[in-house]
Amino acid sequence: MSKAPKVSKRGAIPPFFVMEVMRAAAEREAAGLEVLHMEVGQPSTGAPKGVLEAAHRMLDADVLGYTGALGIPALRAAIAGWYRDRYGIDVPERRVVVTTGSSGAFQLGFLAAFDPGDRVAMASPSYPAYRHTLTAIGVEPVELPTGPEHRFQPTIELLEQLDPPIQGLIVASPANPTGTMLSREELTALANWCDAKGVRLVSDEIYHGLTYGPEAVTAAEVSESALVVNSFSKYFSMTGWRLGWMIVPDDLIRSVECLAQNLFISAPSLSQAAAVAAFSCTEELDGHVARYARNRELLLRELPKAGFDKLAPADGAFYIYADVTEMTDDSEAFCKRILAETGIACTPGVDFDPARGLRFVRFSFAGSEETIAEAARRLIAWKR
Amino acid sequence: MSKAPKVSKRGAIPPFFVMEVMRAAAEREAAGLEVLHMEVGQPSTGAPKGVLEAAHRMLDADVLGYTGALGIPALRAAIAGWYRDRYGIDVPERRVVVTTGSSGAFQLGFLAAFDPGDRVAMASPSYPAYRHTLTAIGVEPVELPTGPEHRFQPTIELLEQLDPPIQGLIVASPANPTGTMLSREELTALANWCDAKGVRLVSDEIYHGLTYGPEAVTAAEVSESALVVNSFSKYFSMTGWRLGWMIVPDDLIRSVECLAQNLFISAPSLSQAAAVAAFSCTEELDGHVARYARNRELLLRELPKAGFDKLAPADGAFYIYADVTEMTDDSEAFCKRILAETGIACTPGVDFDPARGLRFVRFSFAGSEETIAEAARRLIAWKR
Repeated sequence: MSKAPKVSKRGAIPPFFVMEVMRAAAEREAAGLEVLHMEVGQPSTGAPKGVLEAAHRMLDADVLGYTGALGIPALRAAIAGWYRDRYGIDVPERRVVVTTGSSGAFQLGFLAAFDPGDRVAMASPSYPAYRHTLTAIGVEPVELPTGPEHRFQPTIELLEQLDPPIQGLIVASPANPTGTMLSREELTALANWCDAKGVRLVSDEIYHGLTYGPEAVTAAEVSESALVVNSFSKYFSMTGWRLGWMIVPDDLIRSVECLAQNLFISAPSLSQAAAVAAFSCTEELDGHVARYARNRELLLRELPKAGFDKLAPADGAFYIYADVTEMTDDSEAFCKRILAETGIACTPGVDFDPARGLRFVRFSFAGSEETIAEAARRLIAWKR
Repeated sequence: MSKAPKVSKRGAIPPFFVMEVMRAAAEREAAGLEVLHMEVGQPSTGAPKGVLEAAHRMLDADVLGYTGALGIPALRAAIAGWYRDRYGIDVPERRVVVTTGSSGAFQLGFLAAFDPGDRVAMASPSYPAYRHTLTAIGVEPVELPTGPEHRFQPTIELLEQLDPPIQGLIVASPANPTGTMLSREELTALANWCDAKGVRLVSDEIYHGLTYGPEAVTAAEVSESALVVNSFSKYFSMTGWRLGWMIVPDDLIRSVECLAQNLFISAPSLSQAAAVAAFSCTEELDGHVARYARNRELLLRELPKAGFDKLAPADGAFYIYADVTEMTDDSEAFCKRILAETGIACTPGVDFDPARGLRFVRFSFAGSEETIAEAARRLIAWKR
């Protein structure tokens, strides 16, 4: 007699709704129809030329075996150099840990910092993998409902209202999906609040480098105990290379190293070796940022003409988060209709905010200028 | 006033002791002394030529963005084809999931199958990441103490003695560190026992293709509910490419997909695209296996002359696990002494068997024939 083996409860996390959009978009393309992609959260460009050249060289020269769990020394040194050059701060190389994307960094960081039953707060809306990764490892995500009045960022007032207390706080500046940022004063105040309460600050800095006004501030500058997460996927345009990094506080390094040995062994070797060259490619990369800036300006000017007039500030990243309350009460159906009637793929807010996401839509402007301009024209025509 | 943020308890997992060996070996090499590497669990060769050529082409042709969470269709199809060609079985492509190494597969599989508090059994000695990964996600590893009388493999008799019951069983055939295998009858009996008890079978098949007698049997052939884990790191000689796969039972596919979206996004794109070519490189890869076979024969013949005469069978993989009870009661100190006095790096058993590992040493024969022959000569001379 056979008995069904169990399926875990914790594995029953919701899928990304954006995947539904992408599937519908792919079906449309398979049917020979055009799609303007504004749903994707990644650059339309590949890695910079210097990285590709380095990768070609490494393919011919190196066995590409496992590396040390914390990453190759040359890359850890180059990342430390980036903090010196860009932020003007000294980060010791021992605290620089190379990871398999920011995804790998969140797994290692969360496991090293939090035990089952701990509570970790974050703004809602925010990147859905925070919630789902925490849930999978038994940590309770605590959502802080934020709106334009908070610039969609956590505030000390919101944190003070939490009961029972939290053990961690995730911030992202620039944030996904809103693009809003924390000023130096705001980030410092949050870091100090965390320090006073014994709360571990996790700072997601994956959109650093993609800003359209003030530069982003790193938590590594304002806190010794914060866990800083970053990646080669956005500014460095190396999405599929699956490479990221952490700046790890001293009290977590040993755990992170042991966890990394067991859960990852190492980040991809070719990606690591090639990424050293990325820091010399800023001219090419800044060209992408200039394009994002033009796309952003065009959308902030044109979207209101199409009825999308309640937009989050988009200080950074490559997203515009639009409140569509006056157009629909079901952004999922709304996005499907936009795709069917205009060929534009965009993301309903439900991935980022389960409670209020049906009233929001996210547009990505990481695509080409032609795509973004044509999308704006079609949305305006569609509205009329 | 500042309060220290917490460090998780679950992150306090032991490091790999082999890392100590590797550090000592690196120090020796830095001092200009030679090291014969028999501690490493990876091929000394790089990816096969066809894979490298494909990687060069992809670097020039593709943006290398994220892929679908379950892997690119071409690779999933190629893996399904491998099961048809090598094992003569049909595995539907929907059940083939591409992962970030077998490490990524274990994480996803364990999270999808087991909840906190569940108990999962495995042979002791075995690959230490089983224990540590399970512990990190709140699952209790249950070690089955096995010896030569069990050929270091789980038996139904050992399983029947477990109380309280288990929710999962991990088997590996060939196994690390012993190289022992399960026959078709033994694997079938274990799978049937699991089916009868509602226990999830996890079959680690990472050393398939590296066998020196009967071919390894895949659990995909004898069980519909087993989770099968494999990788491009061993037979395919693509260690640092961080690419593996799972054959996922239908009841776990949805969880695995949602977990993969959140915890990994996707496996490295270049590795995925290039790995499609790996299945056409069997001539080159079988050349490596022939070398391992010659190394294995040499060691089985020569090691007893150096006093290492209690050896696990080494039916597969590229390890020889030696019982050194008569030479030492502290294999860690013993390995350090071997390194200092002969220049040979090998691994104490403590990584694989915390209870009895001080009486065992693992020799890897993945290196060149010159390395292995010279190591044997030195060990024999050292013994005299």
